[in-house]
Amino acid sequence: MEVKDITNRDQDFAKWYTDVCKKADLVDYSSVKGSMIIRPLGYAIWEEMVHVLDQKFKETGHENVQMPMFIPESLLNVEKEHVEGFAPEVAWVTMGGKEKLEERMCVRPTSEVLFCEHFKKIIRSYRDLPKLYNQWCTIVRWEKTTRPFLRSREILWQEGHTMHATAEEAKAETLRMFNIYREFQEEYLAMPVITGKKTEKEKFAGAEETYTIEAMMYDGYALQNGTSHYFGQHFAKAFDIEFVDANNKIDTPYQTSWGCTTRMIGGLIMTHSDNNGLVLPPKIAPWKVIIIPIGEVAERLATLEENLKSHHITYKIDNSNKTPGFKFAEAEVKGYPIRIELGERDLRNDEVTLVRRDTLEKTKVKFNEILPKVEELMETMQKDMYDRAKIRRDSMIYEAHTYDELKDIAKNKSGFIKINWCGDMACEDKIKEDTTLKSRCLIEDEVPDEVCVVCGKKAQTKLYIGRQY
Amino acid sequence: MEVKDITNRDQDFAKWYTDVCKKADLVDYSSVKGSMIIRPLGYAIWEEMVHVLDQKFKETGHENVQMPMFIPESLLNVEKEHVEGFAPEVAWVTMGGKEKLEERMCVRPTSEVLFCEHFKKIIRSYRDLPKLYNQWCTIVRWEKTTRPFLRSREILWQEGHTMHATAEEAKAETLRMFNIYREFQEEYLAMPVITGKKTEKEKFAGAEETYTIEAMMYDGYALQNGTSHYFGQHFAKAFDIEFVDANNKIDTPYQTSWGCTTRMIGGLIMTHSDNNGLVLPPKIAPWKVIIIPIGEVAERLATLEENLKSHHITYKIDNSNKTPGFKFAEAEVKGYPIRIELGERDLRNDEVTLVRRDTLEKTKVKFNEILPKVEELMETMQKDMYDRAKIRRDSMIYEAHTYDELKDIAKNKSGFIKINWCGDMACEDKIKEDTTLKSRCLIEDEVPDEVCVVCGKKAQTKLYIGRQY
Repeated sequence: MEVKDITNRDQDFAKWYTDVCKKADLVDYSSVKGSMIIRPLGYAIWEEMVHVLDQKFKETGHENVQMPMFIPESLLNVEKEHVEGFAPEVAWVTMGGKEKLEERMCVRPTSEVLFCEHFKKIIRSYRDLPKLYNQWCTIVRWEKTTRPFLRSREILWQEGHTMHATAEEAKAETLRMFNIYREFQEEYLAMPVITGKKTEKEKFAGAEETYTIEAMMYDGYALQNGTSHYFGQHFAKAFDIEFVDANNKIDTPYQTSWGCTTRMIGGLIMTHSDNNGLVLPPKIAPWKVIIIPIGEVAERLATLEENLKSHHITYKIDNSNKTPGFKFAEAEVKGYPIRIELGERDLRNDEVTLVRRDTLEKTKVKFNEILPKVEELMETMQKDMYDRAKIRRDSMIYEAHTYDELKDIAKNKSGFIKINWCGDMACEDKIKEDTTLKSRCLIEDEVPDEVCVVCGKKAQTKLYIGRQY
Repeated sequence: MEVKDITNRDQDFAKWYTDVCKKADLVDYSSVKGSMIIRPLGYAIWEEMVHVLDQKFKETGHENVQMPMFIPESLLNVEKEHVEGFAPEVAWVTMGGKEKLEERMCVRPTSEVLFCEHFKKIIRSYRDLPKLYNQWCTIVRWEKTTRPFLRSREILWQEGHTMHATAEEAKAETLRMFNIYREFQEEYLAMPVITGKKTEKEKFAGAEETYTIEAMMYDGYALQNGTSHYFGQHFAKAFDIEFVDANNKIDTPYQTSWGCTTRMIGGLIMTHSDNNGLVLPPKIAPWKVIIIPIGEVAERLATLEENLKSHHITYKIDNSNKTPGFKFAEAEVKGYPIRIELGERDLRNDEVTLVRRDTLEKTKVKFNEILPKVEELMETMQKDMYDRAKIRRDSMIYEAHTYDELKDIAKNKSGFIKINWCGDMACEDKIKEDTTLKSRCLIEDEVPDEVCVVCGKKAQTKLYIGRQY
């Protein structure tokens, strides 16, 4: 692997992105068009994400289940908006062995209808509520154009599905899980995110309200990185799900669903990585440290390994017969947060060199100071990565006060634009048609202070718009 | 839920089995024929299995990856034996959205061909070997008749796929992983297993050697509960995979694969469970303890919870408004290893009642002796469950010295039969035709001491035969 093979990020961002995915050995392609192979490092990052999120879901009372991966066509058709949203992009199984199926089945693009069918069977009384379920699985959406992690025919994800006795409880759940996503992305992925409600036009097929986590990538494009939906009684009524409430009256439960995917790995890359390859925030890196022994250092290496183990700091050692220079470059491509150069010569002065991946800054420390220094560097690096991403993100948020200004920013800048909006879908459509920008989310903590930037009527809300992956 | 709804195990074993699966809330059915819903308790057991096995795989140097779930027909067709073994039972995707696919794709029934295609791309030199990969995923086999966990159209499993520079190394890997399965099932699932090589007739489609883990269920039927395959260079040659060895010569690598599935949950049930429901070995139970508070015991409950938490003993509390008797029955159905009855009246004497699930034996202990007693009971229970299963299993292994004796045992007893065998597939076929019994595995640590029980020729080996799930 040659580092120089990575395209310059500022010259061709799209090519840079796929180069990083490939050179860092995150993914590979196969003869299965539109699907990707997730290689060991890519999958290990996903396992870290799963581990943290799964714990947060369980701490908030959720239980994991596993639904079938197929959906019979008649079941998908039960909820009209939903089927219209998904039917055009599903994979259909029509044959089992040598026999044609009586009814074709799609590979789940999402599992609302499967959960609803199950909820109908297991919910009888208010005592059965809430039902707080989650599922880790693979879904399929038959995309035409695909990119590693961002848009793929197969997606690894989790989907939460919950049922509640009251609308208030379901709405609180929608926001609770939305906040878990936000906290996770800010704290672990060091990604500053913009959060809010989707417009009617952009919400999930079948939802009453969709809350979205929008991250801004290095190139100013938005990545929708997790959504949480409040369904009200919409699906429950379509599926005829009822329960007896505490007063012995028949009622219909209120529902939520929420999901995030391997797309977050794409978001990580496009937020933090650079021309030398992957840069991983220490809190999500599967291996925090890469040790590169140079010369005869076996004894010190053994001591260092013991110390790292006893502090539960995960590490890898590059013991290959490549040159140190090559190993340094490879360690950079693969994004280990801290590189420890354990050199025979340095060790004569009882010193080792630590290199943090984000800034490539080198520090010499005494051998017995490695551990506290590694811990300090990881903490600083995590914070610095978030801060840098936030400063960059904030510098790419623009305000448009007139429609000409909006078009001008859309043409000459990349990033999010904040506008005043009347709430009319026609204005939203016009923006998209004129600029290709779509609504990201409503800005709920700011009061509209001007007229709608498109039609000049009274504004109902402020809104972020932007281009998206 | 009424315990009396569980069919008696000795009257109708098949119905008892599905009753336990349903009443313990392990699974449910849906409109997706042949697939099952794995409910929270069933999935939590699978998560425990995954957790322990995944750790063992990683400790032995394996890395997790994720391959596509689809296999284009032409790729499945590369290896002839393999496609003949699997093509009759795959699900075919023929449409993507509204368009007919140019080439249909099956949902993976197993992923040898996908791994081979990838190995061909990433293996160049002996330095790239071994490649030790594993994947946790769902596979699909279009079964006609299905039973929860035992035979399902969708199966959750892991599949290991490894490539090695030498045959010796690959054979050692085949046995290493085989031994991990055996140890796991004996130590965690408390299941005594019979292990050995499959006959030519029964081995995996495309393998040189298949090693199998065979557990005997309560009814004497065998459950194949994990297999490890040595492929030699079979697939590697079909896929044209080559590497440059240390002497700069071109060679073909040697391959293994190994897998185990949610079927192990079925094995657990059919080995240990009883007429009151599920019985889980403590080491695999997601929750070791169920606490049933009776009366006003909030303060003691809080102390008990703290103690269990500090000892990392997982537990649930039944705080519902059902009667204690109902709660006891439900705790039994769901298989919690230890039940703690925390009663107001008993606590006046500073006592609580512990009940172990396998024997339903009750013990009164002082409140501050709960922890050591729970730990002691779990250890004893784990050991006792294994011992009981082994005694029962051993009592159902028969030896047949003549073919009449074989037929007589096959007709009147259920269990495994040990025979001397000439090694000829014709004799194996005859046994199957006359008795429905199939080969379980070769007995490699016993020397044949009689002639072949079928044809009377010189025996090559001893062999276990039996009926199977």
